[in-house]
Amino acid sequence: MTIDSLQFKDLDPGERLLMGPGPSNVPARVLQAMAAPCIGHLDARFLTYMDETQKLLRFLFQTENALTIPVSGTGSAGMETCFVNLVEPGDEVVVCVNGVFGTRMSDIVGRLGGKLTRVDAEWGRAVDPEAVRRAVRNGRPKVLAVVHAETSTGVRQPLDDLAAIARECGALFMVDTVTSLGGIEVALDRIGVDAAYSGTQKCISCPPGLAPVSFSSAAVQAMEKRKTPVVSWYLDMTMVRSYWGEERKYHHTAPINMTYGLREALRLIAEEGLDARFERHRLNHRALVAGLEAMGLAMLAPEAERLPMLNAVRVPEGADDLKVRQSLMRNWNIEIGGGLGALAGKIWRVGLMGHTSRRQSVYLFLSALETVLKAQGLSLRPDALDAAAAVYGST
Amino acid sequence: MTIDSLQFKDLDPGERLLMGPGPSNVPARVLQAMAAPCIGHLDARFLTYMDETQKLLRFLFQTENALTIPVSGTGSAGMETCFVNLVEPGDEVVVCVNGVFGTRMSDIVGRLGGKLTRVDAEWGRAVDPEAVRRAVRNGRPKVLAVVHAETSTGVRQPLDDLAAIARECGALFMVDTVTSLGGIEVALDRIGVDAAYSGTQKCISCPPGLAPVSFSSAAVQAMEKRKTPVVSWYLDMTMVRSYWGEERKYHHTAPINMTYGLREALRLIAEEGLDARFERHRLNHRALVAGLEAMGLAMLAPEAERLPMLNAVRVPEGADDLKVRQSLMRNWNIEIGGGLGALAGKIWRVGLMGHTSRRQSVYLFLSALETVLKAQGLSLRPDALDAAAAVYGST
Repeated sequence: MTIDSLQFKDLDPGERLLMGPGPSNVPARVLQAMAAPCIGHLDARFLTYMDETQKLLRFLFQTENALTIPVSGTGSAGMETCFVNLVEPGDEVVVCVNGVFGTRMSDIVGRLGGKLTRVDAEWGRAVDPEAVRRAVRNGRPKVLAVVHAETSTGVRQPLDDLAAIARECGALFMVDTVTSLGGIEVALDRIGVDAAYSGTQKCISCPPGLAPVSFSSAAVQAMEKRKTPVVSWYLDMTMVRSYWGEERKYHHTAPINMTYGLREALRLIAEEGLDARFERHRLNHRALVAGLEAMGLAMLAPEAERLPMLNAVRVPEGADDLKVRQSLMRNWNIEIGGGLGALAGKIWRVGLMGHTSRRQSVYLFLSALETVLKAQGLSLRPDALDAAAAVYGST
Repeated sequence: MTIDSLQFKDLDPGERLLMGPGPSNVPARVLQAMAAPCIGHLDARFLTYMDETQKLLRFLFQTENALTIPVSGTGSAGMETCFVNLVEPGDEVVVCVNGVFGTRMSDIVGRLGGKLTRVDAEWGRAVDPEAVRRAVRNGRPKVLAVVHAETSTGVRQPLDDLAAIARECGALFMVDTVTSLGGIEVALDRIGVDAAYSGTQKCISCPPGLAPVSFSSAAVQAMEKRKTPVVSWYLDMTMVRSYWGEERKYHHTAPINMTYGLREALRLIAEEGLDARFERHRLNHRALVAGLEAMGLAMLAPEAERLPMLNAVRVPEGADDLKVRQSLMRNWNIEIGGGLGALAGKIWRVGLMGHTSRRQSVYLFLSALETVLKAQGLSLRPDALDAAAAVYGST
């Protein structure tokens, strides 16, 4: 069996403006870090980078949790890590579902033999804490799980009430922060989160491939009290933490160059500062929404429940969803996301995540969308750029 | 909670000669590919790169298997993928164990509730097919699993007899090719392998982070006939293959830039050609062993069972294992591996994998080791470089 090597051309992915649900655009410093020479996973220098990455992740998660590491997989592996380590067969688990990622949580609980209670909310709305309170009233859940930033709908879930409910019923509070981390506050210790996971390719603006996770001491105790082994060897935190902790016991080979990239992305976040970064995400979000609404378009989620980094906007009457996205990609090199599940064809998901959350992205996208929609024959109000400009002010 | 961003210095991993059990040195072209702009996981260009990566992996695995993809994790995730998709609770699994990685396979089978039969062999020797034949005689194993290249001992396992045994008893034949793939022949279809997994950081010479896997149609049928769901959502091939197959159904975000790197590493392999690559590994191995033996050192495995890419050499009497390795690292920037488990302190593991398998590596390592051992007071025969040169001949 032979192969003609000439059929595989030089790599040339092009340059996109990544305004979909992730990945976001990656800063040059992060890409350059990833191209540094690969060294060994037990090399003293790499161990230092591991320690620094943990320190930076604790800062980003606003936590003192010792067990704060990047799992060697994408955000979905982070989700699986949290469930597989904390849920044993027969354990009661309450999952809030208002989009694709809550649904995925439920799926995983089922595979692990957990006793699932779903609290469903409309896709496009936050979950009502009272519904959760009713759901936990008669049970003894071990875990209460919720998505902080539902990437499928752009909805932001307030966490404080749910954290209080988890405390009251003695459940571990697990939060999906895949899309929120690095774009809005994720303060694990202040809120009282016991297990959180994220991905690198959203508001951290590192390529996909690692999943930051953090576990409170209560969560670690729950792992230590397990009656059954963790079904996944690869994601078994009792072993993985020996490699990331002081023992440095070999478990599996860490993704070295991905870790370089994550460290650099986190260093950029530390240099910017969390408050400034969150304010930047808010500002660009406000300008985008002002522009879209001025054009005559409508957002899916009510104002109080919107995420700044993932903007779900309704496809306007008369527009061809797929053709609009194709035109944005082909003629403007702009990627946005379509709707998932019941929202397919009904919304666009416009990301302003991490490095992509810039004034330039907002203006370019508004200009492009206006042009493309007009070419489809829609009559739009011409005030989009002015409305965005009004948000930014005179600078 | 604040952080002083200045404490995190510019990334500078240094340049090592990676002659341990992996990672191996990564060619500049692969590092540069990883630094290309990140694009979306459903971008048409990325889908082309996925197709090409699969095509190149099929060439490397010498297989027509449709389900041939890189799993989004390291080699250990590849091991878990194979077991978690093929083993259900109660399934009989025969695992050959002659080192760390066979032991890990056994561990995983236990976690999945499989009925494990271990066939143990001495660490440092291949597994005897007759022992396997005896072990399967009274059972109906669903899977027979073995490590092709045991990274902990440098032992090469002949596969043909074991493949025949698997065929005879109707078991799926699963092979760990983490360290062999790209360095010696791994011809899945000719041998009759039903499930194989590997890692990127050994003889493929891409940084760690992806796990190439390949499943035969018999293995896919076994997945389709499962009575229970795959316990891992992340590694569930029935879903992952919809993303890598024609449906392009979103499952999880692929590690984009890692995939760039893997594609480039595989392109380098296609350009070199498999026969030339394997011959290069054999030649440098022969020269290394000639040099070590001329110096008076002894290999762990018998000649017929040695791997060319992972050379386990006995720590000579009078040498301080740890100090030798530290001196090689500190004074020469050369990384080699120590022994694991029962072989700790007794062997060094000297890798000549992929890009590292070069004449320059062999000479530099022999020179360095001779210098370091002499500094520890050992008296060595002075013929190492001449013996290596004799293998290379006059070119």
